[in-house]
Amino acid sequence: PYQRASHDFFIPDKLREELQRKAEASLQTLPNSTLPVTVDHFHSLVPLDTNNQRNTTTFGYVTWAYKATSGKDGKLYALRRLEGYRLTNEKAILAVRPWKRINNGSVVSIHEAFTTRDFGDSSLIFVTDYHPNSKTLTETHLHHNPNPRFQSRAQPQAVSEAVLWSYLVQTASALKAIHSSGLAAQVISPSKVLLTSKNRIRLNGCGIVDLVKCDALPPVEEQQQDDFLQLGRLVLCIASNANATLNMPKALDHLTRHYSPRLKDAVTWLLHPPNTPANPHPEKNIDIFLTGIASEVTTVLDNTFHAEDTLYSMLMGELENGRLVRLMAKLGLINERPEYEHNEQWSETGERYYLKLFRDYVFHAVDENGRPVVDLGHIITCLNKLDAGSAELINLVSRDEQTSLIISYKELKKGIETAFNELVRGAARRG
Amino acid sequence: PYQRASHDFFIPDKLREELQRKAEASLQTLPNSTLPVTVDHFHSLVPLDTNNQRNTTTFGYVTWAYKATSGKDGKLYALRRLEGYRLTNEKAILAVRPWKRINNGSVVSIHEAFTTRDFGDSSLIFVTDYHPNSKTLTETHLHHNPNPRFQSRAQPQAVSEAVLWSYLVQTASALKAIHSSGLAAQVISPSKVLLTSKNRIRLNGCGIVDLVKCDALPPVEEQQQDDFLQLGRLVLCIASNANATLNMPKALDHLTRHYSPRLKDAVTWLLHPPNTPANPHPEKNIDIFLTGIASEVTTVLDNTFHAEDTLYSMLMGELENGRLVRLMAKLGLINERPEYEHNEQWSETGERYYLKLFRDYVFHAVDENGRPVVDLGHIITCLNKLDAGSAELINLVSRDEQTSLIISYKELKKGIETAFNELVRGAARRG
Ligand SMILES: Nc1ncnc2c1ncn2[C@@H]1O[C@H](COP(=O)(O)OP(=O)(O)OP(=O)(O)O)[C@@H](O)[C@H]1O
Ligand SMILES: Nc1ncnc2c1ncn2[C@@H]1O[C@H](COP(=O)(O)OP(=O)(O)OP(=O)(O)O)[C@@H](O)[C@H]1O
Ligand SMILES: [Mg+2]
Ligand SMILES: [Mg+2]
Repeated sequence: PYQRASHDFFIPDKLREELQRKAEASLQTLPNSTLPVTVDHFHSLVPLDTNNQRNTTTFGYVTWAYKATSGKDGKLYALRRLEGYRLTNEKAILAVRPWKRINNGSVVSIHEAFTTRDFGDSSLIFVTDYHPNSKTLTETHLHHNPNPRFQSRAQPQAVSEAVLWSYLVQTASALKAIHSSGLAAQVISPSKVLLTSKNRIRLNGCGIVDLVKCDALPPVEEQQQDDFLQLGRLVLCIASNANATLNMPKALDHLTRHYSPRLKDAVTWLLHPPNTPANPHPEKNIDIFLTGIASEVTTVLDNTFHAEDTLYSMLMGELENGRLVRLMAKLGLINERPEYEHNEQWSETGERYYLKLFRDYVFHAVDENGRPVVDLGHIITCLNKLDAGSAELINLVSRDEQTSLIISYKELKKGIETAFNELVRGAARRG
Repeated sequence: PYQRASHDFFIPDKLREELQRKAEASLQTLPNSTLPVTVDHFHSLVPLDTNNQRNTTTFGYVTWAYKATSGKDGKLYALRRLEGYRLTNEKAILAVRPWKRINNGSVVSIHEAFTTRDFGDSSLIFVTDYHPNSKTLTETHLHHNPNPRFQSRAQPQAVSEAVLWSYLVQTASALKAIHSSGLAAQVISPSKVLLTSKNRIRLNGCGIVDLVKCDALPPVEEQQQDDFLQLGRLVLCIASNANATLNMPKALDHLTRHYSPRLKDAVTWLLHPPNTPANPHPEKNIDIFLTGIASEVTTVLDNTFHAEDTLYSMLMGELENGRLVRLMAKLGLINERPEYEHNEQWSETGERYYLKLFRDYVFHAVDENGRPVVDLGHIITCLNKLDAGSAELINLVSRDEQTSLIISYKELKKGIETAFNELVRGAARRG
């Protein structure tokens, strides 16, 4: 059972439903919005914020998040708007450049930044990848229901050791990419970490501080050391369900009692400066951290391989649908074409005739009482055999029961190709 | 460009084609085979061997590999047959038990072992997962063409540092699972490592020696130490394109000149016993090894995340096909049903009538010269709008051009649901 669970670590039980919800979130529009019609080359803005809190703690500005379509490539992006931001130093915008080169599976990819007056004020827009139907770690783990009537029910669930480790490993992988590019994440807080699918997280606050505070940043080495501290606090927050203010000793005590010594050691390493009694290690950098948690990195790697395998084999199954769509489209093109319907020669002879009977066999089956058989499984099976060109024989009967014909799927498949090619030739002849 | 390449590390450029080839390999049958019709509860055997060499070096027996279908669950499995094997110790077969619990993304999963007389001799059958269209590392990297005429052309390609590391990391992840279960891989040779998709490998020789030599095995600690040695030799073989006999000093020299010092250090660690001048480390175990290569494990992890993301978004795209198959099936069930065709009331009124006109609009479009428009894109676009229930209006015209009707996809979608539900009710009424 443990093995089984780890098998599905990154794949939700109802993957299809998750994919469907993501598709819906991507398609969702906001018809009568008061938002600007276009913001630079983006249009069709939809707010992503789930609350209206004018919170300035993270970036020093009130921020808003939107989904938007790029007029350049037609793709969806997430825009983060910093309300009231004024560019005082033209060089600030260049701070986004090195971030555009960070291509890591645990960091939300950053595309560009620009200032705009399209909102009626002066705003900074940060353009990143859009991950449909994501939640922040705050929303996922730390949402205490503000309504006291529901407070007792809203008892948040304890997070498992495996999930905490996977968050640690993913963030460490992100920090490796970031630090080795001479950058620092700077913002690693529960509201700036996105859960984009089951147990998969991505840092979502990177690059903004570099731009907004570009004149007043400490040396990058200091920022990187601060990343470790922030990561330690993140794990503590989530482990102890501490929302706003973290009571450090209490949280560490909780961690000690409910999780493994290895996890506690990792968090201790993160929280304390090197060369101190609490952390005697002479030096702190991301490679040392990764070395210390190599065993857990390997576990996450294997979970990811399993996820890859599951998605891979699902994709193999779905390819079948693509083939069936093309087949049904071809049958649809051939059967009951009006321009051939008045031509007895074409429609009632040769392959068109038995393809029509086959269509009735697949779609218009009736039971012994003449009532419709509505069975999508029957349709799919017939079409799959047709696609495979199976040697299996079927008995096709005309509607008036005067004609009956025994034919293989293989011959039917050939018949479709012939009739389809005839249509294509007919089409090519035009113009 | 480097980043880009790493993005697709585990995903082939032509993923669809790879999936198609795998589907074909899975479906492939051998109609007039001389193989037994059934082997225990397996049937439909197809040989997987690509040569007829009666090679006994790996297991002490001539072995054959087959794809076969299980009569129990209908799924495909790989069978490895050891020709002429006789079970002398009933307990030997129990050696397979702990292997059944190894569930690791870098080990071919083992299901069972049994002896059989179905081949006319006494054979041992080892049942494992089947990975369609796989190749061994020998076939992938070490295949020197035996025909001297082609030898010059068959100059094998040098394997990149990134690929070698990924093999090392994946095998190390496999050894972690194996060693921590008190087992040893025992066979880590190029012909017993399967490449199952782009850069993804799995150990394919595990568990067999445990069974065949169960009375004469060294202590498991010794076997595990031997695994490191074999892994070191594997990397050397592939790095230096050494096929059969490995000239160790020459291969190490090649590695030193063409690859990084880190890779050479890892291989040196693997090849030498602990506490020796060449390897001063006091101890050798898989955790120490993984700790030493933590940075490379993290790189492979990120490559795997990227692969997961690519497969995930492809799957989102393919889901569309599933929806279209169901839609077309419904349209097929409704349009031109014979039992309603003689009922003017049903077929020419209400939703059936405009669904018929819609069918003509989607499938039977003609150009201004009355020639068929054969455009799968048009069909897919129409069906997607129908599926989404778009507010867009279309103009449906009857075949005799006497009736014309402006209607939205939304209304058409409702019409399909109504007519389909009527059919389902009709079907339910039977019996
Ligand atoms: N790149 C993105 N793709 C998809 N959804 C996103 C993206 N970025 C943010 N979101 C969603 O938008 C919402 C707001 O994000 P935000 O980062 O502002 O969090 P917040 O809880 O509002 O924090 P804060 O109080 O700091 O603004 C969240 O629900 C989040 O899931
Ligand atoms: N589980 C499996 N799933 C799919 N194909 C497999 C599987 N196991 C082996 N094969 C394929 O079967 C063929 C034979 O495998 P085998 O392990 O016998 O290699 P070999 O080159 O014949 O080595 P040897 O000389 O040791 O027998 C290879 O092409 C391999 O790709
Ligand atoms: Mg916000
Ligand atoms: Mg063989």
